[in-house]
Amino acid sequence: MIKTGRRLRRSSRTTAGGRRSGVPPKVVALGGGHGLSASLSALRRITGDLTAVVTVADDGGSSGRLRTEMGVLPPGDLRKALAALCGDDEWGRTWAKVVQHRFVSGGDLHGHAVGNLLIVALWEQLNDEVAALEWVGRLLGAHGRVLPMSAVPLDLHAVVRGHDPDRPEEISTVRGQATVALTPGEVQEVQLVPADPPAVPEAVQAVMDADWVVLGPGSWFSSVIPHLLVPELAEALMTTRARRVLTLNLAPQPGETEGFSPQRHLEVLGRHAPKLTIDVVLADEAAAPDRDSLAEAAERLGGTVELAPVAAPDGPRHDPELLAAAYDRIFRMRGRIGPWR
Amino acid sequence: MIKTGRRLRRSSRTTAGGRRSGVPPKVVALGGGHGLSASLSALRRITGDLTAVVTVADDGGSSGRLRTEMGVLPPGDLRKALAALCGDDEWGRTWAKVVQHRFVSGGDLHGHAVGNLLIVALWEQLNDEVAALEWVGRLLGAHGRVLPMSAVPLDLHAVVRGHDPDRPEEISTVRGQATVALTPGEVQEVQLVPADPPAVPEAVQAVMDADWVVLGPGSWFSSVIPHLLVPELAEALMTTRARRVLTLNLAPQPGETEGFSPQRHLEVLGRHAPKLTIDVVLADEAAAPDRDSLAEAAERLGGTVELAPVAAPDGPRHDPELLAAAYDRIFRMRGRIGPWR
Repeated sequence: MIKTGRRLRRSSRTTAGGRRSGVPPKVVALGGGHGLSASLSALRRITGDLTAVVTVADDGGSSGRLRTEMGVLPPGDLRKALAALCGDDEWGRTWAKVVQHRFVSGGDLHGHAVGNLLIVALWEQLNDEVAALEWVGRLLGAHGRVLPMSAVPLDLHAVVRGHDPDRPEEISTVRGQATVALTPGEVQEVQLVPADPPAVPEAVQAVMDADWVVLGPGSWFSSVIPHLLVPELAEALMTTRARRVLTLNLAPQPGETEGFSPQRHLEVLGRHAPKLTIDVVLADEAAAPDRDSLAEAAERLGGTVELAPVAAPDGPRHDPELLAAAYDRIFRMRGRIGPWR
Repeated sequence: MIKTGRRLRRSSRTTAGGRRSGVPPKVVALGGGHGLSASLSALRRITGDLTAVVTVADDGGSSGRLRTEMGVLPPGDLRKALAALCGDDEWGRTWAKVVQHRFVSGGDLHGHAVGNLLIVALWEQLNDEVAALEWVGRLLGAHGRVLPMSAVPLDLHAVVRGHDPDRPEEISTVRGQATVALTPGEVQEVQLVPADPPAVPEAVQAVMDADWVVLGPGSWFSSVIPHLLVPELAEALMTTRARRVLTLNLAPQPGETEGFSPQRHLEVLGRHAPKLTIDVVLADEAAAPDRDSLAEAAERLGGTVELAPVAAPDGPRHDPELLAAAYDRIFRMRGRIGPWR
């Protein structure tokens, strides 16, 4: 059954996650890249207890070069998440701009984001991935924590049908997140290499302690699904008492999910984590043309669809205010009221 | 006449710079590199009103590469000065370590100091050399201000006798601070290119407002003398009502001042700024074997010699505690008590 946000009214008695009034819901957002930034920009408006768990399989751009040169985790998605959580004052905004600053030159530094270099320096100085990110968070006055999903740099491989346009039925393996993101053909499945990376314990604990876990929006195969392929994190996502919301993208992504319907997004996610249930699928009203099929796909994951206007007026991106309003409504109305699960 | 610090006793009635008790003396330290760091490490212990004015002619290492690649001021000496002023707490010490962190790799980033990259990013973001350095100072919880002597990147040229060992009497011009610092032969004179760079107004103002101006220790031709070649800064150094102390190095520097006696250091400095008077020449007791000649050289600059034990026991470097004690004594005993100059 489709429930639209507009039909729901806030109840003054129930609060997010069933917690007592005044205590912010513990929210964990999983993802990477621009999708996670959108998610965090919204969630920071409605909770003071926010943790981001970030994919570490990027091998493109500044992050890819740093992986290769310095043998570190790719810092880019971590940096973007931290910047999205920066303090609201001049201090936080200035340092966020500096951290996001990208050098433009004809030389060695061209394309490097300063925050990536700062994160790598802190990793080398402190020899502790999690503590180093806390320091950057403190620099930014960040409204929340940012954790890598694994302390091991990962590679993303994709099983693709028709990667070679001349052989549309052939199945082949495409290696590397940057390549997967732009692959021609149809992605069937993604895998992490190594296949069973250790999760960061703090990330597992955050998921276990959460009231709400938020997956998506974002690049489906390279930012949303990878978390489900880290065994300890997948286990935590399945066993946590938190409720799970999955936010769909506003449009298919050329390369990764070209031609994919919203329900197809749910199907491929489900194939990567067959035992995972989703409580709420959040979709933009205008981006879900076939509501019955979407509702059926959501039901197969154990959840229901929440439709809400979450797109910005100026393009296919989530509006932070609208997305925040949608999450707020979901957390209030769909929160666990008692220990009835 | 030589006065040794040990003969002097503190007066409880006179305070540094003749200011009323409880108001810290306004001190401006001019220099670059390790010498300026030693100076700042000492001065921060005895005043809460400290400004560093830093040379910007470096063309070697990370700074030199950044000048060439990004067209910016060389940030390295500014970074070192900021780190020397970092806060005493975990916050200040951690960020100082990060700012001083140097990448080691087989790739493009090898040798770059992270603080250099951070300073360049702030320059590009804020488009204001002075404000950007204030932001780094705030990050470090710095006990003082750090200013470039000029907002224009400068080149240092040296007139050298016997640069080519086969022609010991030949006079030639050696270009670039990194090359000058290691030149064989005897440096006669240094010049800045361009020859009349604009001073940073805040640096001129700091000198004019100071109670004490401190020159040296440091690489004599590449860190101490260049400030005297910036016309507005030289003018300020000559006209300020501040007293001027010049701290000698503990040993000649191979290349720049090989074989130079302490008095020879004073002579070459005087040749670069004939109208400048120095009130106090501070020298380590053990590094001034010919005290009469040194006193005569100091007198020619208008000043007297203060001898004090300022060398660290473990090598030819200034000990911050001992140097602080020497400055404190000088500021208290040689300070201007009334407007009698």
